[in-house]
Amino acid sequence: MLWFVGMGLSGADSIPQAAREVIKDAEITYLEEFTSPIIPDMARGISELVGGELRRALRWMVEDGREILERAKGGTVALVSYGDPYVATTHIELRTRAIRGGIKTGTIHAASSVISMIGECGLHHYKVGRMATIMEDPGSTTTPYWILYRNLTDGSHTILLLEYDRDNRRFLDPLKALDLLLNAERGQQRGAISESSFVIVASRVGSKRQSIVAGRISSLREQDLGDPPHTLIIPGALHFTESDALRVLGRCLDEPRDNIVQRISSQMISKYVPMVRNAVREISPYCSDSDELYTIL
Amino acid sequence: MLWFVGMGLSGADSIPQAAREVIKDAEITYLEEFTSPIIPDMARGISELVGGELRRALRWMVEDGREILERAKGGTVALVSYGDPYVATTHIELRTRAIRGGIKTGTIHAASSVISMIGECGLHHYKVGRMATIMEDPGSTTTPYWILYRNLTDGSHTILLLEYDRDNRRFLDPLKALDLLLNAERGQQRGAISESSFVIVASRVGSKRQSIVAGRISSLREQDLGDPPHTLIIPGALHFTESDALRVLGRCLDEPRDNIVQRISSQMISKYVPMVRNAVREISPYCSDSDELYTIL
Repeated sequence: MLWFVGMGLSGADSIPQAAREVIKDAEITYLEEFTSPIIPDMARGISELVGGELRRALRWMVEDGREILERAKGGTVALVSYGDPYVATTHIELRTRAIRGGIKTGTIHAASSVISMIGECGLHHYKVGRMATIMEDPGSTTTPYWILYRNLTDGSHTILLLEYDRDNRRFLDPLKALDLLLNAERGQQRGAISESSFVIVASRVGSKRQSIVAGRISSLREQDLGDPPHTLIIPGALHFTESDALRVLGRCLDEPRDNIVQRISSQMISKYVPMVRNAVREISPYCSDSDELYTIL
Repeated sequence: MLWFVGMGLSGADSIPQAAREVIKDAEITYLEEFTSPIIPDMARGISELVGGELRRALRWMVEDGREILERAKGGTVALVSYGDPYVATTHIELRTRAIRGGIKTGTIHAASSVISMIGECGLHHYKVGRMATIMEDPGSTTTPYWILYRNLTDGSHTILLLEYDRDNRRFLDPLKALDLLLNAERGQQRGAISESSFVIVASRVGSKRQSIVAGRISSLREQDLGDPPHTLIIPGALHFTESDALRVLGRCLDEPRDNIVQRISSQMISKYVPMVRNAVREISPYCSDSDELYTIL
């Protein structure tokens, strides 16, 4: 049997009771920390709870999966990860393969930072649009920039996760991620983001050192945001109860304000209508009648 | 002090260790079950863990909040709810008021069905768009219909929660909810949904009797979907690993297929261009030259 065990956000304390029993009884527990890092305190807590063998699951081991599936055929195996197990698509794929291979699977769901951070910032869940990850490679910013733009046209909030490079234990810096978005803005000019955009930086969500800092990008530049992990949330249209909650739950460097963007069609109308009007004004003295003007247009 | 305690999805077992300690020590524990119902087994589990007084928190008590805040000024109070505590905006508002009133607050995050059901259906989180709730009142379907349409134009998946009426212990039936959407389609005609749309019904997520059934609406009509709670997920463009996982994790009455919708502008172009072309063909014999045709157009 193969168990997918989520251990929540805030240390051994956040592990559900059912998960404790699973990892106590499993013959082998794989600790997976390449999709999200596991804080040392949490890793210690887990190692104390584990009844059988404890191994680190490296990326190739989970993606390849053969060793884990082989062990699960013969006995009880637990794959333990940060947050909820199926936020990482790799785990869903492994589960699919297990079931196809006739291996029984079980799941312990747990708190996920994706959900928790929304509430910790005082935002409403039903106003959150599609989320995206910003990666260090500037070529990969097109998708998150587009998602941000689309969400903003609906007034939706955008969660932007930041790349985690397990091999080098490095997280993408939140200000660098914002620079990547600003760079995409210069190229695409949809008006989705500028130095005066209001952004929330949620850091170390769920841990004792959690911090929620919000403000214009220009104000955030002067802040020490502390250790990773960080997540960016770019709100769309804020309900007044969201602004109220954010002021109390976070540290606001500027007054919360909506980030609103016009649809490209509206942007084009406001840009081209005056241009056309000027052109008509310029050429109309040279036209004999309105028919001629229409033909030129 | 006021604790907001999430108890996850699957019974007393899913309660995080930290939550057990909080409700053991709290002088009063309020059990909140109007934002989401608490299954009897879970309620029993909690009542066994509670060290102090146990009270049911009715809607007006949480919305009014004065009794809870008053008690939290003088001692330790826990407000326990299904899933993660801040998916319900009422809880965020109560927390904001508590902090403003100088009351210390604490949070125990836990598994939320909103996150868990995505993974249980084999879907990718970063492809989920804004979610919505369908309510029994047909007049309130405009928003979920619009959100569905917008998500589909991006290929995003839509989670549709169904109204829960605590007073009458009644959940909106999933097939009735689909009928409400089909009715909105007849009014708005954006092409977002039809009898052949592929829909996932996730029932009792996290419980032992969880079920994931998927198929065209016409096929779902013939199914007994069992007891509530149910949630609808209308996928947009499915990645092949999502379809593969859904086939294995759920019961597919039909082959998984994408629900794709054209933007209104594209719909209008495909509708009007042939009409205009026909009109031009019809009138052109009566026009002396193309200038006259342009003027008519």
